[in-house]
Amino acid sequence: MKLLNTDTVKEARDKLGERCRETMLRTEIVGLRDAAGRILAETIISHENIPPYRRSIVDGYAVMSKDLAAAGDMIPSMLKITGEVLLGSDPAGLRAEPGCCVYVPTGGYVPDGADAVVMIEYCEPFAGGMLAVSKSVSAGENIVRIGEDMAEGDTLLEKGRKLRPQDTGVLAAAGVCEVRVFVPWRVSIISTGDELVGPGEKPGPGQIRDINTYTIAARSGAEGFDVVRTASVRDDRDAIVKALETARDESDVVIMSGGSSQGKKDMSAELIGELADSGVLTHGIAAKPGKPTITGFDRASATVFIGLPGHPAAALMVYEQTLIRLWRELTCQPEERRLRARVTVNVPAAPGRRTFQLVRLSGGDMPEAEPVFARSGMILPVSAADGYFEMEENREGVRPGDMVDVVLWK
Amino acid sequence: MKLLNTDTVKEARDKLGERCRETMLRTEIVGLRDAAGRILAETIISHENIPPYRRSIVDGYAVMSKDLAAAGDMIPSMLKITGEVLLGSDPAGLRAEPGCCVYVPTGGYVPDGADAVVMIEYCEPFAGGMLAVSKSVSAGENIVRIGEDMAEGDTLLEKGRKLRPQDTGVLAAAGVCEVRVFVPWRVSIISTGDELVGPGEKPGPGQIRDINTYTIAARSGAEGFDVVRTASVRDDRDAIVKALETARDESDVVIMSGGSSQGKKDMSAELIGELADSGVLTHGIAAKPGKPTITGFDRASATVFIGLPGHPAAALMVYEQTLIRLWRELTCQPEERRLRARVTVNVPAAPGRRTFQLVRLSGGDMPEAEPVFARSGMILPVSAADGYFEMEENREGVRPGDMVDVVLWK
Repeated sequence: MKLLNTDTVKEARDKLGERCRETMLRTEIVGLRDAAGRILAETIISHENIPPYRRSIVDGYAVMSKDLAAAGDMIPSMLKITGEVLLGSDPAGLRAEPGCCVYVPTGGYVPDGADAVVMIEYCEPFAGGMLAVSKSVSAGENIVRIGEDMAEGDTLLEKGRKLRPQDTGVLAAAGVCEVRVFVPWRVSIISTGDELVGPGEKPGPGQIRDINTYTIAARSGAEGFDVVRTASVRDDRDAIVKALETARDESDVVIMSGGSSQGKKDMSAELIGELADSGVLTHGIAAKPGKPTITGFDRASATVFIGLPGHPAAALMVYEQTLIRLWRELTCQPEERRLRARVTVNVPAAPGRRTFQLVRLSGGDMPEAEPVFARSGMILPVSAADGYFEMEENREGVRPGDMVDVVLWK
Repeated sequence: MKLLNTDTVKEARDKLGERCRETMLRTEIVGLRDAAGRILAETIISHENIPPYRRSIVDGYAVMSKDLAAAGDMIPSMLKITGEVLLGSDPAGLRAEPGCCVYVPTGGYVPDGADAVVMIEYCEPFAGGMLAVSKSVSAGENIVRIGEDMAEGDTLLEKGRKLRPQDTGVLAAAGVCEVRVFVPWRVSIISTGDELVGPGEKPGPGQIRDINTYTIAARSGAEGFDVVRTASVRDDRDAIVKALETARDESDVVIMSGGSSQGKKDMSAELIGELADSGVLTHGIAAKPGKPTITGFDRASATVFIGLPGHPAAALMVYEQTLIRLWRELTCQPEERRLRARVTVNVPAAPGRRTFQLVRLSGGDMPEAEPVFARSGMILPVSAADGYFEMEENREGVRPGDMVDVVLWK
């Protein structure tokens, strides 16, 4: 295995991205009820003015503001009530005239002629259909203008947006019942190794329970991917090849999670080289953790292959930095928000490699990031961490008090 | 409607919490593959030592460290190779003896007698089964101790934990195949109003497209709730009662999203009073937005009723502060992380009410929180906001430069 020609994490992503951008980004149309959590594949523009009419934000009376210029607590102004707007009904024919007013409920159509709504709290009906108003109003008061929420031509939501609950509200308000979204990748996870046993089994001497199948499947699901297959296969070349071929037919992404011994790493590279017609693209990345990562692409079936490191912390981090980030980049998602924090202790960087350091965050005005170290094969410290920060390839490390940008774990 | 006896947001939650803690918190057992994203209803303790044997973290040779005390680049130490550990197989009978060494792959069982593993990079096999080692090792080097990841009796994951991908890895490693989690609430959403039309319809004068059904359903789904029914009902008392009765039979939580006019608010309170045998618990909360909120509890069917304000921004915020927070409190979830930020402009608080202010966050060392104002009925500003901060009931407001704790929108 040549580790001399390692790629940076970005190079590894770019090599895959170049090849899969054309074939692996499918879109589909979904209805509003299925849109939340999906990634928009189109920018949504408003084709209407919302609200399409002037809307009252209070229960009150639509008036001409100049009629109330002198109204006050001591000397109310008297207006004639000429009608009532009913919610949701056409107020055709109703018009505010000088000296008159029209009752309007919250959300109601403000009749033409009126330029303000005075709240009901300041009004007192009198005999003969008259209203005493004890407060003046300024023009426009308590009225939402036509198009004030969304104007025709406004950009409502950008391509690459992960639709949140309130975004579906924007779509509903704008009358957009269907949107084009990206089809999530179908992922297969093949774990290999004679030493692996299932979580329900008691590991014998030298055996270990399979962790990566569960963490990678759950991480895939959390990103919206569709986990179509997980399989645990013995260290038998033919059996592994067969499992990989099936996975290639069914999936957009085939994850191989093998051991971390040299012999196993060599076999992963060899098998990916055989099964992916574009061959191995990256053989080793300049990252800590995550050096023994292998990627490949099969053009014929449009399938990405990734051979992950065996250690759980490394496997999860490499998966995050390669495939998850690649998906986000290709689907135009903005970078995740990072939280600025102060490092508590010295953390050396791995020379020439991008270092990803797990941390636990404290609260406070300026959160502190306390490094969490997960030795090879350990998973509990990964679960105890709140997130991680990155140190660039040329960085020597960070010292206590240095500021870092923490990505919070999903 | 009496707004004199409004409850604080916390009082409203507590009144509901007291009544639904006993009857509305069900748990169920799920398998490991279905556990991610669920809320643990039990604390998970380790019943084993993981790893259960001493494990090598490198490919190399298990040795007695004192044999290599003098080993160096110039003068290697010579050891006799007495065996090889195979991954996943029982190394019974293999033992490191003085002057001897045993090959161990990464993740392999370190044979008894050895107290360190020297990396293969520093070893060179010679004729006669001998190995030249050019580096000394300290006791324990490259070995993960028994129980170093998880020791028997360790608390692995606390009750109330929302299981993340890496947490499922902890469960897998610990041999926990099933966990007890909380059963998510079943939610029904009944929108009422003659003025409401569906998102596929063109609103006539005075009409408005239904927004709250979509935002509240999506927000429920994002929290893991099960949205069993959404219905849009005309302003017909009998039709609304029928819809509410059906919803009560099918759900743990019935959300009424009506208009914000006074008449409608009165009707929501009246209907909840009739349908919930414990009556109306909260009639108005001291919050901005969200004053016209009504809650009730039906003991017979164990159903929470919430009448939300009609305005989308208010409805979403009230839903967050009442039901979502109540769920998190009852299921022992920790408070969400808040992001410290500096406010850019003056924001007055509503006197005597808890004020929730939407903000958009900038990046930078100390993020700035720029207030976003959503006038009544508007939804686009809600979607543009990154989150919100709270001002307590007795607060007068915040001034530019003040620090606030921002909750990021889901």
